[in-house]
Amino acid sequence: MITLKVKDMDIASGGPLVAIINEKDAEKMDFHHLDRIKVIYQGKIETVVIDIGKSEKAVPIGGIGLYEEVLDSLNVVDGETIEIMPARKPLSLDFIKKKLDGFKLSKNEIDQIVWDIVHNKLSAIELTYFVAACYSHKLDSRETTLLTKAMVAHGEKLKLNRYPILDKHCIGGVAGNRTTMVIVPIIAAAGLTIPKTSSRSITSPAGTGDTMEVLADVTMPIERMKKIVEKTNGCIIWGGSLNLAPADDKIIKVEKPLAIDAESQLLASVIAKKASVSATHLVIDIPCGNGAKLSNKKRALQLKKDFEDITKRMGIKTKVLITDGKQPIGNGIGPCLEARDVLWILKNDRRGPADLRKKCLMIAGVMLEMAGKCAKGKGKEIAKEILKSGKAYNKMVEIIKAQGEKIINPEDIKIGKITYDVVAKKKGVVKKISNRSISKIARVAGAPENQGAGIYLYKHIGDKIKKGEKLFTIYCYSKHKLDFAKYALEKLDGVVVK
Amino acid sequence: MITLKVKDMDIASGGPLVAIINEKDAEKMDFHHLDRIKVIYQGKIETVVIDIGKSEKAVPIGGIGLYEEVLDSLNVVDGETIEIMPARKPLSLDFIKKKLDGFKLSKNEIDQIVWDIVHNKLSAIELTYFVAACYSHKLDSRETTLLTKAMVAHGEKLKLNRYPILDKHCIGGVAGNRTTMVIVPIIAAAGLTIPKTSSRSITSPAGTGDTMEVLADVTMPIERMKKIVEKTNGCIIWGGSLNLAPADDKIIKVEKPLAIDAESQLLASVIAKKASVSATHLVIDIPCGNGAKLSNKKRALQLKKDFEDITKRMGIKTKVLITDGKQPIGNGIGPCLEARDVLWILKNDRRGPADLRKKCLMIAGVMLEMAGKCAKGKGKEIAKEILKSGKAYNKMVEIIKAQGEKIINPEDIKIGKITYDVVAKKKGVVKKISNRSISKIARVAGAPENQGAGIYLYKHIGDKIKKGEKLFTIYCYSKHKLDFAKYALEKLDGVVVK
Repeated sequence: MITLKVKDMDIASGGPLVAIINEKDAEKMDFHHLDRIKVIYQGKIETVVIDIGKSEKAVPIGGIGLYEEVLDSLNVVDGETIEIMPARKPLSLDFIKKKLDGFKLSKNEIDQIVWDIVHNKLSAIELTYFVAACYSHKLDSRETTLLTKAMVAHGEKLKLNRYPILDKHCIGGVAGNRTTMVIVPIIAAAGLTIPKTSSRSITSPAGTGDTMEVLADVTMPIERMKKIVEKTNGCIIWGGSLNLAPADDKIIKVEKPLAIDAESQLLASVIAKKASVSATHLVIDIPCGNGAKLSNKKRALQLKKDFEDITKRMGIKTKVLITDGKQPIGNGIGPCLEARDVLWILKNDRRGPADLRKKCLMIAGVMLEMAGKCAKGKGKEIAKEILKSGKAYNKMVEIIKAQGEKIINPEDIKIGKITYDVVAKKKGVVKKISNRSISKIARVAGAPENQGAGIYLYKHIGDKIKKGEKLFTIYCYSKHKLDFAKYALEKLDGVVVK
Repeated sequence: MITLKVKDMDIASGGPLVAIINEKDAEKMDFHHLDRIKVIYQGKIETVVIDIGKSEKAVPIGGIGLYEEVLDSLNVVDGETIEIMPARKPLSLDFIKKKLDGFKLSKNEIDQIVWDIVHNKLSAIELTYFVAACYSHKLDSRETTLLTKAMVAHGEKLKLNRYPILDKHCIGGVAGNRTTMVIVPIIAAAGLTIPKTSSRSITSPAGTGDTMEVLADVTMPIERMKKIVEKTNGCIIWGGSLNLAPADDKIIKVEKPLAIDAESQLLASVIAKKASVSATHLVIDIPCGNGAKLSNKKRALQLKKDFEDITKRMGIKTKVLITDGKQPIGNGIGPCLEARDVLWILKNDRRGPADLRKKCLMIAGVMLEMAGKCAKGKGKEIAKEILKSGKAYNKMVEIIKAQGEKIINPEDIKIGKITYDVVAKKKGVVKKISNRSISKIARVAGAPENQGAGIYLYKHIGDKIKKGEKLFTIYCYSKHKLDFAKYALEKLDGVVVK
C-alpha cells in the first residue's frame, strides 16, 4: 500500500468522489485519469475517481488532493496521512455500456447502476453515458419500472400507517398554476392523507416549494414531515431536502447541459418520488397546449399511457388528466403573488382567480372519487363544499402552523414596491398569453429569489380589453431589475391582443 | 458588467475552460452550474463554463476561481480583477442534441462541433454526449469524412513539397509487432517520403513512440520534423506533441471510461492524422485473430471497407491489409527489447525475429508497389534487397542521428537485470500465446515506463518444445515488480503447450 499526505482542495465536485494525485506519482503507480483507487483512513475506506494534477502547485508529489465529498466521507483533514490501493471500476460501467449497445438491462444491473449513482461512484462522464444510453435506447416499461423501484430502494422512505395515501403531480410548464396549495388542504380536510412534496423552481419564476415558503417552512427532515402528516393529514414540503429517490437529482444534473428530456427517466423520477412517500392513489396533471411543455396532443396521450403503464406495474392507482396548458393559470406569477392567490381562493375571497379555483376543484374532485370518499361524478361538488365551508382554509391554517407559520393572512404578504403596468395599445380581444414569455419576464424581475417579484395578470385569453387598459403589472424590488424586465418584455411576444 | 477577483485554483481541468463562482454570487446573478460566462481581462475575452462553489473556502463571495487553462488563456494571475458577463451556450450543443436524436449532421454543424472541441468550449459532459451520439447513431461515410476533414482543418499540418507521401497505420492489439521501425527506413532508403508519426502506449507495454525513444528523441515541434523528413525522407516521431488533429485526443479521453470504440471516430481519428501530414498513399494493417483487437473476420472486412471508403473520399490512395493477429510478432515485448529486435533485423543479424522481418517486408513491398517504385508483385523483393544491402540500416542510422541519437548499436541497449524464466512443464507443441496476457505481464513487469522491462519470447505458435525448455523470460528492474509479474503470470492463461 502507498501512503500519501492529504491536501484539502477546498472544492466540491457536486457529486462524484474525486481525488487528485500528481502526474509523477500517477506514472510511477501506473494510475490513469478516471482510474479508481481505494482511499483508506483510520479503518474507513472510500473508492474514488482519480484526476491527474500536472503541476506540483496543484498537488505535490507524495500528496493527494481530496474534494470536499471525499474529506467528508472519510472525515479526514488537510495534512493527515492516508493509504491508497488500486480499486476496480464500478460494476455498473459494464451495464451502462451494455445499454449503450442497445441491450435490455436486468433488475440486478439497473439496481447496481442506481446504487453507484446514489453513492457517487460514477464520474460525470460515466453518468452522462447512462443518460445518453437511456435516451438513445428508450427503456421499456419493465426497465422503467425497475429503475423506479431501484430509485425508491436507494433513498429515504416515508412510512405511514394509513390507507389510502393520496398524491398528485403536475409535469409543469404553466406559469402560476399553484394547484397543490389549494388541493392539499381540501383533501386533508376531507380526512384523507396527502403527504405532498414539491419542487423549487429551476427555470420557472416559482415552484410550489418557493410559494409555500412564503407562508411556512418547507425544508425539514422526514421525521418532522411524518409528524405533521400524522397530525394534520397533509403537508406541503420541499422534496429536495428529503433524500427521496436521490439518484434522480444526480441524473437531472447531467441532463441539463443538453436539455435532455429522457422520457423513461422523467417517468421513473416522478413515480419514484411518489412511491417514496408510500402513495397508493395518484393524480397526474399533464398541461397541454401551445407554449406548454407539451403542445402536441398525441405526445400528451402517449405520456399519459406511459404514466398509467408504469404506475400500474408499481401498484399505484393512477388517473392522468390532460389539461389546458396554453396560458398561465391564476393571476399571480412569482412566490408572493401566487401565495396570495391561493389564500384568497381558500378564504373564498372574490379576488381569488376563478380559473385556478376551477382547476383545483376538478382535480380535488377526481382525487376524492378515487379514494372512495364519494360516488363517481360527485367529487367536484364535495370539494366545492369543503372549500366554501371554510374547512379547507382552516386545514391550511393548521398545516401552516404545523410547518412553522410565517404568514396566514393574504393581506400580510408583501409584494414588490416598484411596479410597471403593461397596457393594451389598442382595443381588442386577448389572443395569446405565452407561458414562456410571462415566466421569463417574472424571472428577470427577480422571482423566485425576490419572493415579492413577479407579474400580476388582469386578463386571460378571450377577455375583451380596451385601449390603455392594464394587461398585467410587473412587480420588483429595484429599478435595475425593472429595466431588465422591460428589456425582456420588448424582445418577447408575451401577450397578443387582436 | 460584474467585477470579480481572481483566485488561482491551482488545478487543471485537463481540457474544458472552467471557472468557479460562489453559490451566493451565482444566485444573485442567476447563473447555474454549467452555464457559460465571458471572462474579460485587459481586452482579452474567454468563454468559460461555470461551476458553483458551495463554501467561501473554495471561492469567496466576489471572487472567481479560475482553472489553469483559463489563467493561461487570459494570462491573468491570482488577485487580479476581471469582469464577467453572461455568454451564450456553444452553438454545437444544438448539433450534438440533433445527432443524439438520430439526425444526420451537415458540414457546418460538424465543423462547429470540432472547433468547439479543439478550443475547449465543451464541458466533459457535453463532449460525452457527442461521443455517445456518434456511438448510438453511427456516422455515415459522408459524416465521417466531414468529421475527418474538420479534425484536419482545426489542427496543425505538415506541408511537404513532395509526391508521393507515404504513410502506414496499424490498428494495434498485437504485442511486439514493431513494423514501423523497419518499414520507414526501407521506404525512405528507396527514395520515397514517409513522415511517420506514432503513438505512445496507453494500455500496451509499448507504442512505437516508446520504442523509438530508446534510440532517439521522438518529441519535437513540427518544424523540426519537417527538416528531418526533408533531409532523410523519413522520421519516426511521437504524434502526441504535434497538435495534429487535436480534437481526436480530447475525444479519446472521454471514450476511455467506458472503453467506447466508436468506429466512425476511430476511422476519422486515424485518417485525420494521416491527412494532417499530407499523406497521399497509405497502408493500413488490421491484425485479426483470437486475442487481437478484432477476432472476427467479418468485422475486420467491414472495417477494411470503411477505411477504403473514407480514404477514397479524402483522396488518399489506400491499401488495407488484414494480417494474422493471433499471437505476438517479434520476440521482444517492451521498449528496449523491441528496439533491439528492430536493429537486429535492420543489421541482418540472425537474431532478428523472422516473423517480424517477414511482415515488414510484405508491408514495405505493398507500399513500394503503390508508390510506383516497381512492378506489381515485385515490391517484397525490392524491399528485401534494400534490407539485405544494408541501405535500410544506414537510413535508420541517418534518421536516428537526425532525431537526436541515443543508441545505434543493438548491443548497447540495456535490458532489465532481474530476470525470470518461464519453462514448459511438459513436452509438446505451443498452441496459444495470448497477446493480452503477454502484454499484461510485460506491463506489470514495468514496461513501458521501465524501458528495459518486458518479455522475450523464445517460441511461437506451432513450435515444438521440450519439458523444461524456456518459453519466455521476464525482464525487470526490481524484485517487487517481478513478484507482481509472477502473480499476474499465475492468474493468466498466457501460453498453452499441448
